[in-house]
Amino acid sequence: MDKKPFKGFAFVDGGVCAAEGFISGGICCGLKHQALTESAEETAKAVPDTAPKKNDLAMIYAEVPCTAAAMYTTNKVQGAPIAVTKAHIEDGKAQAVIVNSVNANTCNADGVQKAEMMCKAAADALGLRPEDVIVASTGVIGQPLPIEPIVNAAPALAKSLSREGNTAAVNAIMTTDTVPKEVAVSFEIGGKTCKLGGMLKGSGMIHPNMATTLTFLTTDCAIGAALLKQALREVVFVTLNRVSVDGDTSTNDMVCVLANGKAGNAPIEAEGEDYETFKDALYAVLMNLARMMARDGEGATKLIECLCDGAEDDRTAEIVAKSVITSSLFKAAIFGEDANWGRVLCAVGYAPADFDIHRVGVTLGSKKGTIEVCRNGAGVPFSEETAKEILGEEEILVHVTIGTGAGSAVAWGCDLTYDYVRINGDYRS
Amino acid sequence: MDKKPFKGFAFVDGGVCAAEGFISGGICCGLKHQALTESAEETAKAVPDTAPKKNDLAMIYAEVPCTAAAMYTTNKVQGAPIAVTKAHIEDGKAQAVIVNSVNANTCNADGVQKAEMMCKAAADALGLRPEDVIVASTGVIGQPLPIEPIVNAAPALAKSLSREGNTAAVNAIMTTDTVPKEVAVSFEIGGKTCKLGGMLKGSGMIHPNMATTLTFLTTDCAIGAALLKQALREVVFVTLNRVSVDGDTSTNDMVCVLANGKAGNAPIEAEGEDYETFKDALYAVLMNLARMMARDGEGATKLIECLCDGAEDDRTAEIVAKSVITSSLFKAAIFGEDANWGRVLCAVGYAPADFDIHRVGVTLGSKKGTIEVCRNGAGVPFSEETAKEILGEEEILVHVTIGTGAGSAVAWGCDLTYDYVRINGDYRS
Repeated sequence: MDKKPFKGFAFVDGGVCAAEGFISGGICCGLKHQALTESAEETAKAVPDTAPKKNDLAMIYAEVPCTAAAMYTTNKVQGAPIAVTKAHIEDGKAQAVIVNSVNANTCNADGVQKAEMMCKAAADALGLRPEDVIVASTGVIGQPLPIEPIVNAAPALAKSLSREGNTAAVNAIMTTDTVPKEVAVSFEIGGKTCKLGGMLKGSGMIHPNMATTLTFLTTDCAIGAALLKQALREVVFVTLNRVSVDGDTSTNDMVCVLANGKAGNAPIEAEGEDYETFKDALYAVLMNLARMMARDGEGATKLIECLCDGAEDDRTAEIVAKSVITSSLFKAAIFGEDANWGRVLCAVGYAPADFDIHRVGVTLGSKKGTIEVCRNGAGVPFSEETAKEILGEEEILVHVTIGTGAGSAVAWGCDLTYDYVRINGDYRS
Repeated sequence: MDKKPFKGFAFVDGGVCAAEGFISGGICCGLKHQALTESAEETAKAVPDTAPKKNDLAMIYAEVPCTAAAMYTTNKVQGAPIAVTKAHIEDGKAQAVIVNSVNANTCNADGVQKAEMMCKAAADALGLRPEDVIVASTGVIGQPLPIEPIVNAAPALAKSLSREGNTAAVNAIMTTDTVPKEVAVSFEIGGKTCKLGGMLKGSGMIHPNMATTLTFLTTDCAIGAALLKQALREVVFVTLNRVSVDGDTSTNDMVCVLANGKAGNAPIEAEGEDYETFKDALYAVLMNLARMMARDGEGATKLIECLCDGAEDDRTAEIVAKSVITSSLFKAAIFGEDANWGRVLCAVGYAPADFDIHRVGVTLGSKKGTIEVCRNGAGVPFSEETAKEILGEEEILVHVTIGTGAGSAVAWGCDLTYDYVRINGDYRS
């Protein structure tokens, strides 16, 4: 899937290592042996023993202390790493990240203790204090985390970190993801070239609320902790929080950003032009990561982007757009490349917001063109053949117009497929 | 699936014809030729031309005028029949029902006109005024309803009505339903034997809110229109509104009840013992229809019943129970017979209600027994073998205890399967 340009920001390679002064890496420490994403039999078939094992432990390190900000899931069930990370970055500072996949370290009596042990292992290996380390976990909920493989692997992992380590790192955080998800951009602040990049994992239990699935961002731009937090919050609301794969808000969602100031710009300490540029860069990265996450939703074959405009306000547009991309019936219809716009209107109709359904219009589009299927709440004749051709593409745009105001919002989802059922019918075994 | 007993009410046969003074019937008027539930190819394979066609038009007639009450979908998009039915039973009276499947008569410019033509066709054939007729439609949204086949078939359908016509009638309202759904009970009011029965259709776009999918109830009990409406409302809230198949609240949901007073009891005109008995009978019927609807959800292989208790109030318990049965991830796990209780706790955690997650407990059960899987928000060891055996059954009970109060609620759902995707990936073709 192509990256979507935003305000002319130049995309660069490197993910979490794109910005100056950050190194990272990933390793297979052996957690994979405890829980596989599919049945042992299937895995044996798919992955011969000679195949390289997928990484399960990643680390990011900043050469100098960073300002840091994070957002977390609003699920009442919260993974133990979230409690530990919250405490560690309360002072707005951090210098490293350690994260494992396979096991979420959630709903375990000894979870916090083990999350702290992960921080200590990383800190010891990197010469930091445990309080300088952000920790995250993703995988199965409610199974004790085997800590030994992580502690044992930390020194070697720390030694392996490099400017090219982003590929190994992003591989380590993948679970049911089928592709790695990295985006980075280059931009200028006060004549200095800055970079901001990151990596993200999906791809099930994705219905972020206030924050989302594991996302790690790094930048060499100098920015104060308060504004970094504010920018993260504002941009997450219109990017990661606008994605749904299955309606399930995860227990371990987290997005964090580290800013090390290496670009040498005058630190951004107040709102203004520089802050807006930084926020735009953050949007360019997170919007693309959000799209990649939706496109790689469990079992997905298509990205669904819903733009709702003409609403009384942005909030109304957001509620409508999210209702459309969350509808199981519409998601299944898109998998079948069936222009069943009645399901779009149905989802618009039960969205918990106030507007006149008799003014609503719907078009369906893709690279192949656009067709109007509904005007003023009623169907309009269209060519099923043209519709089929449009829906045959990988990226589908649903445009819902409310017709009463200037509010707008975009949300991203994916189709509902046989593979979603296959993947989730037997995740733990 | 066995009916679930309630307070010793005796189940009787006859569905909408169980109560004295009601006759019904169903016919294939030819709407089936316009839109099939699966691809023409699949249908040709599954149903050889010699097979009898499924009915698509049903009628219910009461020998005498009835008090009547109804509830409707809260979706802003509402099928044209809903507007017409609302107007017709505003006076609390009705004497007949006409209903078609295949086409929902929704989002069509001429929808109201055609719904009125359906009422007139039924009225003419039955010797009634159109205002005495309740009309409903279910099927594809946004395709013009062919009215001729309905108008042409109405006289023959009216002539065919009988006390045994409930089987033909329930067949006519089925869409993706795989089994007919009828329940009736017998009870006593003031020494007189009363009966109350009904039929219901699912099985997709099922996430009722305030009313649900098409449901038709008849009773020979004498009861005033105001109390009939009140009883319907109270019972629907704890039965049909507690079901979700796919999270999609339909545009055509409707439940209506006709009471003709033939049982000869002193009319129920005030709250009291008789009213409570009537309400219990209504509960026994609607609770079983709700369970049948969930079990026959599109593609479903299992019924999931979630009981939440120990909550601060019933509303909190309802929010939690509905969150669990709506979770796509948990539904897929149940299809895979996988005791992935972390997904239950995740859904409990993101339910929009206020409680202490650290006191929550979860057990999984079926005919084969019960196992505790989570206590005080953390996992407890259990035998995977026993869990597999329990989850191998057709009816799965998830019991969530909040541990802080006396509020409780039950909700019903079903597993998420390959067949759900197959059915909805190509519904219109």
